[in-house]
Amino acid sequence: MKIALVLGSVSDMPVAEKAFETLAAFKIEYETHILSAHRSPDAVADFSRNARERGFGVIIAIAGMAAHLAGVIASYTTLPVIGVPCKGGALDGLDALLSTAQMPSGVPVATVALNGGVNAALLAAQILSLGDGRLADELLAYKKRLADEITRKDAELNRVIRKFEVSE
Amino acid sequence: MKIALVLGSVSDMPVAEKAFETLAAFKIEYETHILSAHRSPDAVADFSRNARERGFGVIIAIAGMAAHLAGVIASYTTLPVIGVPCKGGALDGLDALLSTAQMPSGVPVATVALNGGVNAALLAAQILSLGDGRLADELLAYKKRLADEITRKDAELNRVIRKFEVSE
Amino acid sequence: MKIALVLGSVSDMPVAEKAFETLAAFKIEYETHILSAHRSPDAVADFSRNARERGFGVIIAIAGMAAHLAGVIASYTTLPVIGVPCKGGALDGLDALLSTAQMPSGVPVATVALNGGVNAALLAAQILSLGDGRLADELLAYKKRLADEITRKDAELNRVIRKFEVSE
Amino acid sequence: MKIALVLGSVSDMPVAEKAFETLAAFKIEYETHILSAHRSPDAVADFSRNARERGFGVIIAIAGMAAHLAGVIASYTTLPVIGVPCKGGALDGLDALLSTAQMPSGVPVATVALNGGVNAALLAAQILSLGDGRLADELLAYKKRLADEITRKDAELNRVIRKFEVSE
Amino acid sequence: MKIALVLGSVSDMPVAEKAFETLAAFKIEYETHILSAHRSPDAVADFSRNARERGFGVIIAIAGMAAHLAGVIASYTTLPVIGVPCKGGALDGLDALLSTAQMPSGVPVATVALNGGVNAALLAAQILSLGDGRLADELLAYKKRLADEITRKDAELNRVIRKFEVSE
Amino acid sequence: MKIALVLGSVSDMPVAEKAFETLAAFKIEYETHILSAHRSPDAVADFSRNARERGFGVIIAIAGMAAHLAGVIASYTTLPVIGVPCKGGALDGLDALLSTAQMPSGVPVATVALNGGVNAALLAAQILSLGDGRLADELLAYKKRLADEITRKDAELNRVIRKFEVSE
Amino acid sequence: MKIALVLGSVSDMPVAEKAFETLAAFKIEYETHILSAHRSPDAVADFSRNARERGFGVIIAIAGMAAHLAGVIASYTTLPVIGVPCKGGALDGLDALLSTAQMPSGVPVATVALNGGVNAALLAAQILSLGDGRLADELLAYKKRLADEITRKDAELNRVIRKFEVSE
Amino acid sequence: MKIALVLGSVSDMPVAEKAFETLAAFKIEYETHILSAHRSPDAVADFSRNARERGFGVIIAIAGMAAHLAGVIASYTTLPVIGVPCKGGALDGLDALLSTAQMPSGVPVATVALNGGVNAALLAAQILSLGDGRLADELLAYKKRLADEITRKDAELNRVIRKFEVSE
Repeated sequence: MKIALVLGSVSDMPVAEKAFETLAAFKIEYETHILSAHRSPDAVADFSRNARERGFGVIIAIAGMAAHLAGVIASYTTLPVIGVPCKGGALDGLDALLSTAQMPSGVPVATVALNGGVNAALLAAQILSLGDGRLADELLAYKKRLADEITRKDAELNRVIRKFEVSE
Repeated sequence: MKIALVLGSVSDMPVAEKAFETLAAFKIEYETHILSAHRSPDAVADFSRNARERGFGVIIAIAGMAAHLAGVIASYTTLPVIGVPCKGGALDGLDALLSTAQMPSGVPVATVALNGGVNAALLAAQILSLGDGRLADELLAYKKRLADEITRKDAELNRVIRKFEVSE
Repeated sequence: MKIALVLGSVSDMPVAEKAFETLAAFKIEYETHILSAHRSPDAVADFSRNARERGFGVIIAIAGMAAHLAGVIASYTTLPVIGVPCKGGALDGLDALLSTAQMPSGVPVATVALNGGVNAALLAAQILSLGDGRLADELLAYKKRLADEITRKDAELNRVIRKFEVSE
Repeated sequence: MKIALVLGSVSDMPVAEKAFETLAAFKIEYETHILSAHRSPDAVADFSRNARERGFGVIIAIAGMAAHLAGVIASYTTLPVIGVPCKGGALDGLDALLSTAQMPSGVPVATVALNGGVNAALLAAQILSLGDGRLADELLAYKKRLADEITRKDAELNRVIRKFEVSE
Repeated sequence: MKIALVLGSVSDMPVAEKAFETLAAFKIEYETHILSAHRSPDAVADFSRNARERGFGVIIAIAGMAAHLAGVIASYTTLPVIGVPCKGGALDGLDALLSTAQMPSGVPVATVALNGGVNAALLAAQILSLGDGRLADELLAYKKRLADEITRKDAELNRVIRKFEVSE
Repeated sequence: MKIALVLGSVSDMPVAEKAFETLAAFKIEYETHILSAHRSPDAVADFSRNARERGFGVIIAIAGMAAHLAGVIASYTTLPVIGVPCKGGALDGLDALLSTAQMPSGVPVATVALNGGVNAALLAAQILSLGDGRLADELLAYKKRLADEITRKDAELNRVIRKFEVSE
Repeated sequence: MKIALVLGSVSDMPVAEKAFETLAAFKIEYETHILSAHRSPDAVADFSRNARERGFGVIIAIAGMAAHLAGVIASYTTLPVIGVPCKGGALDGLDALLSTAQMPSGVPVATVALNGGVNAALLAAQILSLGDGRLADELLAYKKRLADEITRKDAELNRVIRKFEVSE
Repeated sequence: MKIALVLGSVSDMPVAEKAFETLAAFKIEYETHILSAHRSPDAVADFSRNARERGFGVIIAIAGMAAHLAGVIASYTTLPVIGVPCKGGALDGLDALLSTAQMPSGVPVATVALNGGVNAALLAAQILSLGDGRLADELLAYKKRLADEITRKDAELNRVIRKFEVSE
């Protein structure tokens, strides 16, 4: 199964790129589309309605302001839809966060953090990992690397501090 | 031209009723529909796409939470769309207000106050009044009545106060 | 019928310019004024009271902070008044958004997004289009162009991606 | 000099009553009016423009939602205008607070707390006290009473606690 | 694969019940636990670390205030974790929404709406449906029922209106 | 009577300078002090307690973050205290605005807009004008100049537009 | 060492009572006072200045709205001051939370959750526990009881569920 | 007793540095660690569980976004935990402030201002001062220096102003 990455606007590309890179790192097949809930609603409907049949497992929707994209996609598909709200509208992104997360009962959207491109891709990977042992293993390895990196930084910080104290 | 009143959910009826009454008071023809951006997207698309041809002049969309209804309708029509955000979700209605108002460039929604059923109907009447002398006159009369009512209440208040002072 | 564009302050000009350009693109006649609800209230009252007689169909009011301009204009006219709240005050624009949108029952303002100059002009065009077949056609063409542009960008993005993959 | 108490709507009466009582307690002459910035703008303008000549020293404006009343009054007078934002609109009163406080440079409004009827009256009394020795004395006495009341409550609380501990 | 429903506190039961009912309606096996990120952190860690091995496919975490539960679970597992923020803390639930959604890069939480018990269950069902044809079919049927119900309510509303008009 | 301008921190100087200039333009005598509610509470108490006796008529307090300065001064004096909340803390200044405005019953603070140095000075001038005919006249002249400036800018804008249209 | 519990107003008593009970449960000596930062500033200053000498180890300040109490106490003492912001003002308590937490550099306040009476007492106990082995032990036992209670509730919930399933 | 300074991420270093410098100025022994509640939960648990035994008296946790670090540490220790929410996530830091402060009953976190590194260190010093006379004296001296610095700045400001007036 592959992932669909849908951007509401070209201006959301920096957030999308983080998702691309993460999906690529996990060797997950993905397809990218620019589709606007408000400017090309028919294209969004067509794409979403046929997404499962076309082999997609998860749709990631990236949008800002009154971020309806994830919700509109979710209204046309029964696939899990991950919404990435983007900053840039009002209230330092609260408009996009609320527009993405506060979906009515019956049509869920899996909302991640503002500008959370990496986490959207990771969440998609976690979802696919339920049926994909390799992905499950890689996510575990990734989780370990995250912890190791923190440990390494902690050690480095304390090495720097000790050196500093000695040289003082 | 008639007005379309679209509710996203039966729970928005109290707000819709204020709009009904106001449209009726101005003798404006209207049609009411329950259509959900997220639960019946095809019905919303069908309705919105054909609204101008079917003789509608303005569409009023009433919805709460991640209130996408007005925006989704606006994505399918070039008629003016009035959005009425409803309280009841998060932050005392801020989710609905931001989801309705913060539309991206190219697809406007005319947002009124939270639960602003009366004002949505009045705004629709003002829009129709540009091509309807009778409505323009009635709106002027309504405006005068609003002011007169305030004047009457002010007089009444001062009458009460004076009586109170005398009887003291 | 022509459109009135009213700015509360010279600092709102960048938002107003987007409205100018959009109105011009639709060949809609408009007049521009700097009028302040708080600094020149008499001028606002005079202008608003006579706007319908002077041939205006819609008034667009652009203001920030405690953005009273649209509301004050609406208190003097029965024309549709579009309010454009501007960022720059407090809470990343929430002050202007709430001051513009939260009008009391009886005096509506059609609020668009923060800094939404383009959408204010489009909404005005939609309103005028009810009595102007040419405008209705142009709005439909504009809507189609919006969708086509998204389609074009989507194709372009995928062309770039494919090239990138080949060259890798 | 007397105080003008202006209510934007009859629903603001509970807040206004607290102001009445406080002004009365300080034996300050006042006049009450219901005037709406949006529903009776001419009455607001007339009243505000002539307030100084008519012997008013301070105008207290009480209003909720997009609370423009204080700002509109301030646009017509050079008297100090005290704005009392009222709860009941959106965001637990934030709309009224921001609409009242965030006035543009040149036209100040003295904003007190949400529903702050007592404090509006006290602030008016403080302003008048600059030219009125009796009021200055009474405000000092009032301040002392506030402190004494706290002291009394503190003593009472500790008496209750001691009794409770003894009886235990 | 089964679903784990984790409540941070007994007070979150009403939200959890909506999730129970929805999972039951889809005949999805689930297990319920009360585990607190702050009061029983070891139990949370134990449970989360072994969840995949114990046959869980998705963990739903329901919590309010500084809602750390979903995030803490996500720190111990590579399964998809759905966070349901609950109202009742500060700012009408904004504390829980932000605490759940604003996860740092590397550890995603799939956040649904405030008190969104039904949607959490539906999202879990959608995730499982990727490897379960029966669930995929049932979700499609559910989606159709949602739309049909809206259509039925719309018809009913219009029947009521027509009767009312005739009887007038 | 003179005005006291109290800054909570040197970083508030840019806001204070706008107040200085405005007071100077109105030829109002003022004194400036840096006094911190939290860092030099005794100095604040001493200053505030004796302010009326020392000939001050109004105290302007300028502070950011948990802006207690105005409230603490108000707790020690019966003079009108004007609070100027400053941006720079959290939520684009909301912390300072709420900390300044939301005073408990009994101890009012006259809050102006965020960073509202000019308006604080104008409000002080308005207060003094009740007992100072010259100031009352100057405030009226200032108000007229504000309106004239708007009129002049409006004319200028239209001259520019006309030129632009001719040269096109 | 004993704890001082300071209430800004009698209306904060329900929050204070939770602190009383918790301190009593840990057998920590405490003293209670009603002292208002704004209404009895001298009493607050006197109390705070002498608190360390009078044998207090921690001061807990409970206040709402523009909650200056904790900050004002902290300005007079070098004891740790715990601030408990109370709901009831604006924005569902955000005013009190920001007024308590956003202290300037140099004068810290240890802020706990809105209405967090229990946690304020626990934090005070934790602070005293650094020099009091018995308290350290009791806090550990309390922590264990918290976890056990969750475990017990979890077991109970599962017992109920199983019974329910059997009886079905 | 020494202080533990825990950073959730290297990006929080600027805030941590202010804490370092302040602790160093008070000659308080401290240890620094980078530990992430979400990326290295086991390390956080290990560290927190053993902190009291390892001689720590207070733990300062510095984190942004859904800032769970302080809360997670507090779930494993009965030492006082100071949380420093950092800006950079959403809503100008409100996410971190609410995630840190809004802890459930039973597990307190002592929250200081956004980016409040200095105040976190001072609060730690105040806590240790209960059992350390030298620290108590130094805190008093620091408090005096804060006040003196304000006095010095006030004098300087007035010297500058006087010079300026003379030279005019």
